[in-house]
Amino acid sequence: MTTRLYYARGACSFGPHVVLEEIGHPYEARLVDPGKGDNQSPDYLALHPRGHVPVLVQDDFVLTESTAILCFLGDSNPAANLIPRAGTRDRARLHEWLALLTGTVHIAYRQIARPERFTAEAAAHEGIRADGKKRFMALAGEIDQRLKAAGGPWVLGASYSVADPYLQVFHRFGLRGGLALDGFEHWGAHSKKVLERPTVQRIMDRERLTPSGLKES
Amino acid sequence: MTTRLYYARGACSFGPHVVLEEIGHPYEARLVDPGKGDNQSPDYLALHPRGHVPVLVQDDFVLTESTAILCFLGDSNPAANLIPRAGTRDRARLHEWLALLTGTVHIAYRQIARPERFTAEAAAHEGIRADGKKRFMALAGEIDQRLKAAGGPWVLGASYSVADPYLQVFHRFGLRGGLALDGFEHWGAHSKKVLERPTVQRIMDRERLTPSGLKES
Repeated sequence: MTTRLYYARGACSFGPHVVLEEIGHPYEARLVDPGKGDNQSPDYLALHPRGHVPVLVQDDFVLTESTAILCFLGDSNPAANLIPRAGTRDRARLHEWLALLTGTVHIAYRQIARPERFTAEAAAHEGIRADGKKRFMALAGEIDQRLKAAGGPWVLGASYSVADPYLQVFHRFGLRGGLALDGFEHWGAHSKKVLERPTVQRIMDRERLTPSGLKES
Repeated sequence: MTTRLYYARGACSFGPHVVLEEIGHPYEARLVDPGKGDNQSPDYLALHPRGHVPVLVQDDFVLTESTAILCFLGDSNPAANLIPRAGTRDRARLHEWLALLTGTVHIAYRQIARPERFTAEAAAHEGIRADGKKRFMALAGEIDQRLKAAGGPWVLGASYSVADPYLQVFHRFGLRGGLALDGFEHWGAHSKKVLERPTVQRIMDRERLTPSGLKES
């Protein structure tokens, strides 16, 4: 069985990319460059009808959606201990984090980075961006409080999980969006701790990322 | 242990509401009426900092996010057989559906129903609404194709799961948004089949819903 991940540099596919590295089994990471139209090729659109990343492919099994890939990788590699057992409150808390990030925090960032995905009217884009910044900052406060309540160092407290590298994605998103996140000390400490992991550093190198964005050239 | 669900009529909380009814253990369903400001009371904001539904409370355990509540209810009530075992491809497919609905389809509907949640500029709202309608219709096509591929009658094929009443929510959302969904025969057949379930009918009665919206009065 071969495992292949389609990712774009610094996108939310960073979460699954790190998790594959943490698991340690062989996998193929295939770069999708939207700037070159890679994600609009007929081959890619057959994997994802809207041309998004990530996509995970295992033989004939094609799986989209970051949060689904994170759970599938965690669940199907129990020895890596990256996801709590189904039925526990920790597992429920993990799903709550994943939903908050994919359904709310990601949308606020999209308003900042891609306002054209909400309306074709260019005159409206600055207002959508401003609204997104306001929402992102409020959500950063909520994330900070949730991390504080969890007691650290990780999203679920003592145990590292698939939610940790996924949360880190959005810290980078906030900085890329030009937001000052210094005031959110728990989120800052969490992000720093994720970035210190050797597995995470390897994926940072492969995707050519900095803590606040993409390396040039 | 008491289980309490906070729901609003016809909101995405309908999914968890139906699942509690399917499980069949006693639970309390508490109506939150945003029109009366219920969701902005200090007590409610202590449960959900942004005042959204649903919230599930079990003793001192407070869980937000529809998709997290759906998985938690399914996983902690295995006898009800409402969610595939973690680690299987069916389980991964379920998470993919939940993420698609909460992270993409719900956002398209929000553009139609609540454009003010993307920008304060009233002049931009009609354009955001139009963009949301276009996106929702494209997603309806994708949902239809996915249901066709699953082979019916349910989201995962032969087995009913927590994803089925959750998907039905968005069929109602589309109709409430004034969209013509007749052309999506697989989604229409799925929605009809969900609505025929006695458990679903009981929640439709309690929330005073029709297939396309809320009962007046």
